[in-house]
Amino acid sequence: MTTLYSFGIGIGTKNSNGQWLEVFYPSPILRPSQDLSSIITSEFGDNNEDIEPTKAQLDALESALAATGYDDFAELIRSLKTTNHNVVAVVLLQDSAPTSVPQAYLKLHLLSHRLVKPHHTNISGIFGVLKNIAWTNIGPIDLNELPERLLAARKTGDVIQVDCVDKFPKMVDYIVPSGIRIADTSRVRLGAYVGEGTTVMHEGFINFNAGTEGPNMIEGRVSAGVFCGAGSDIGGGASIMGTLSGGGKEIISLGKKCLLGANAGVGISLGNDCVIEAGLYITSGTVVTLLDDQKVATGTCKAKALSGQSNLLFRRNSINGAVQCLTNKTAIELNDELHSSN
Amino acid sequence: MTTLYSFGIGIGTKNSNGQWLEVFYPSPILRPSQDLSSIITSEFGDNNEDIEPTKAQLDALESALAATGYDDFAELIRSLKTTNHNVVAVVLLQDSAPTSVPQAYLKLHLLSHRLVKPHHTNISGIFGVLKNIAWTNIGPIDLNELPERLLAARKTGDVIQVDCVDKFPKMVDYIVPSGIRIADTSRVRLGAYVGEGTTVMHEGFINFNAGTEGPNMIEGRVSAGVFCGAGSDIGGGASIMGTLSGGGKEIISLGKKCLLGANAGVGISLGNDCVIEAGLYITSGTVVTLLDDQKVATGTCKAKALSGQSNLLFRRNSINGAVQCLTNKTAIELNDELHSSN
Amino acid sequence: MTTLYSFGIGIGTKNSNGQWLEVFYPSPILRPSQDLSSIITSEFGDNNEDIEPTKAQLDALESALAATGYDDFAELIRSLKTTNHNVVAVVLLQDSAPTSVPQAYLKLHLLSHRLVKPHHTNISGIFGVLKNIAWTNIGPIDLNELPERLLAARKTGDVIQVDCVDKFPKMVDYIVPSGIRIADTSRVRLGAYVGEGTTVMHEGFINFNAGTEGPNMIEGRVSAGVFCGAGSDIGGGASIMGTLSGGGKEIISLGKKCLLGANAGVGISLGNDCVIEAGLYITSGTVVTLLDDQKVATGTCKAKALSGQSNLLFRRNSINGAVQCLTNKTAIELNDELHSSN
Repeated sequence: MTTLYSFGIGIGTKNSNGQWLEVFYPSPILRPSQDLSSIITSEFGDNNEDIEPTKAQLDALESALAATGYDDFAELIRSLKTTNHNVVAVVLLQDSAPTSVPQAYLKLHLLSHRLVKPHHTNISGIFGVLKNIAWTNIGPIDLNELPERLLAARKTGDVIQVDCVDKFPKMVDYIVPSGIRIADTSRVRLGAYVGEGTTVMHEGFINFNAGTEGPNMIEGRVSAGVFCGAGSDIGGGASIMGTLSGGGKEIISLGKKCLLGANAGVGISLGNDCVIEAGLYITSGTVVTLLDDQKVATGTCKAKALSGQSNLLFRRNSINGAVQCLTNKTAIELNDELHSSN
Repeated sequence: MTTLYSFGIGIGTKNSNGQWLEVFYPSPILRPSQDLSSIITSEFGDNNEDIEPTKAQLDALESALAATGYDDFAELIRSLKTTNHNVVAVVLLQDSAPTSVPQAYLKLHLLSHRLVKPHHTNISGIFGVLKNIAWTNIGPIDLNELPERLLAARKTGDVIQVDCVDKFPKMVDYIVPSGIRIADTSRVRLGAYVGEGTTVMHEGFINFNAGTEGPNMIEGRVSAGVFCGAGSDIGGGASIMGTLSGGGKEIISLGKKCLLGANAGVGISLGNDCVIEAGLYITSGTVVTLLDDQKVATGTCKAKALSGQSNLLFRRNSINGAVQCLTNKTAIELNDELHSSN
Repeated sequence: MTTLYSFGIGIGTKNSNGQWLEVFYPSPILRPSQDLSSIITSEFGDNNEDIEPTKAQLDALESALAATGYDDFAELIRSLKTTNHNVVAVVLLQDSAPTSVPQAYLKLHLLSHRLVKPHHTNISGIFGVLKNIAWTNIGPIDLNELPERLLAARKTGDVIQVDCVDKFPKMVDYIVPSGIRIADTSRVRLGAYVGEGTTVMHEGFINFNAGTEGPNMIEGRVSAGVFCGAGSDIGGGASIMGTLSGGGKEIISLGKKCLLGANAGVGISLGNDCVIEAGLYITSGTVVTLLDDQKVATGTCKAKALSGQSNLLFRRNSINGAVQCLTNKTAIELNDELHSSN
């Protein structure tokens, strides 16, 4: 029998040409059990597919779910039957690249519902699938339709506030995962994974397919693809180079209990218990002077040779301007492969 | 006779369990006069207490206020009698730590109405008193109630925008003090003290129990507990370490006419007329080379030994990388107590 | 015959005293053709003037436009005739400094509609003309009227969200030019020129009378007066000194294909193909060591002597702390005038 990769059913918005702009899935499902998969596929088939279900399909689905004890899910279907707005169901047999807006939104929901961690669901080509949209106080609006909507609103004294012009909406209009605070929610995109116990302050930012294990204090920028381990703090205005920026193809991560100081930055991965002092930017090409536990210089290397190491403290010596790396171990073990290419 | 520390009466929001989420006080009062205190306590008692006043209490209060010439206050009470929404009065006999949401909001109002300066009202334990709330375009919503509200809105085609998930709302939804501009209001929390003549640009930020004397240009981050004297400018992206962050327990303040350059940062207090050049971060542990008025090096000290001094210019020498401190005085007077512990 | 500098007709908001707060122009016109100028001036005169047109004037204008083949424009006038809200027309014979709110808004629209580039329309004194306004979800509100509005809303359970307290609104509530994304629209002011193909990420910012040629990736701050050439990227949190800030009177621009690294900053103009490494702030006074194509030091100069040069790479040497400038040419040609004053 077939088991599915994922299933979502929700309510979305279309433009005036009937094209999907976005979809809200109240309860996306990752790897439904075999009996649940059976119920779903018997209604909707077992291909990667977007279905706009008929009333009859929803009735049948609700009955089958109720009969099998999936009461919450049955209740959701019952609820969706009462709306006149666009209902859509997405069946994903495999974790393949999204080919439609409903599929792309399902993938983003999986991440933000913490069902998968960043890099653990296939979102290849998602930029090409998503539409650039005006996100407003009256809902998402196709950019081609915005000028006439703005004028029409003005004529009647109504107000349209355009809060975002982007392919990605903000996460919390879809899901607020448990145990978090986000002071300025415009700075966390749908598709972010925000772990339990994470606080994102006003200057914090988390991109899609990036996130925090939790607990974390995020006052700087967690770029696309970056993941921060438990207990790591990203100081105010601190920068972590993303896979989409100059940093290139390397996926950057921070281990547990790291501290990026305010206005600091990093372009390499860090292991656990690392510190970069406030205001210092470490790129992969920064030449770093290594200090042993007596603070004696033992050599230099490019920072990329230290990528992923634990227990490192990076600072810029304020007497001689050298970027130094201290450790609480007697010797720093270099990443041989990278070091050899210095 | 009793005089009160503070009194507020306003309109608030409760969750579906009847718990307070937040309160709006149009005209909070600090240290009401003796006759005003008498009017208040004769209706509401003289303990630190939250009262949901009856119609009869409001009638009596209004009459007493009108009879004693408090016309504006009487008018406010008259106005509050016409609402069906939750009215609450808070009597604070003393400046004690807030023990309820209405009390905490009264304290935050005192700060943002400029009735008390940061650190001059007791807000101990306020984090524990305040609830984490979804602040939306349809008002504050208890996080436990948000998922069903989001789904219900979707079903009817309504829009819920969640702008903030936090214990602290933004200030200007409660009070815009006179003579200020705040370009992106999501970056100034209720409980900020924003002095007359302050401009907070898009990259500026002011936390609760922090603020500016005014006039000030704020394009960087005024962290919790920090106060900036008149005429000081905080450059774009500049960071001031707060008492809640790595900076620890010291309360950091800036004197008058200081300049933090863009992307600069500071972890010590500054006196008057100090400058930190753009891009330089001075932490308490930064070893600084002191230059006399001939720009001759006279020694080094940790920056914390210079905390609170006036007329200092901090820069990083771009030839040799040393962090230097210049003064327009012939000698810099070190903070002996701190210096001795270097 | 007269040809006009600009014409706009739109819908605006007044405060309760009948003073203009702001105006929305759906289709502002720069340098209308001679026959279009004739149609406009025959209705509205040919001085710099703000007119609140009568129904008869709109009828006549619509007829004249339709008769001359200006169908879209005629359609707009027809549409404006159906509103009860404040319609205003602004005729600008010359490009003179704005003397009213409607004129100031027309100038800002010219910039954001990409009809003029930054510094190519006269906005002298615009700060004095514009009013400081509370921009809310129910429209712009005069700050003097805000307190009573906040209280009235609370009494009926309505919500007023104050998103901005400023003289300048956000651009996209007026116009979203083609081919752009702006992730957090509160960070781009009306009056910004956002070129085709520009992405402004959450940490990006563009002030009025500033902008991008497009395509550009903007993750840092494009201050007032600054213009960025095609292909230039401004990294996350990067700062460009504006003419309004400490930078003084010099107008700063970046050429094509420049890269400001994350958390970097610049206080001089850059030519084409320049790079400033992540975390480095170059001010006009920074003393820079020049390196030739063999990376041999050939001398030093203040950065302002390099203003406007192409093919420069600025970095801070991480071994010795010196700020260095490399070029792919054998010699850097200094700006003689500036260099001579070092």
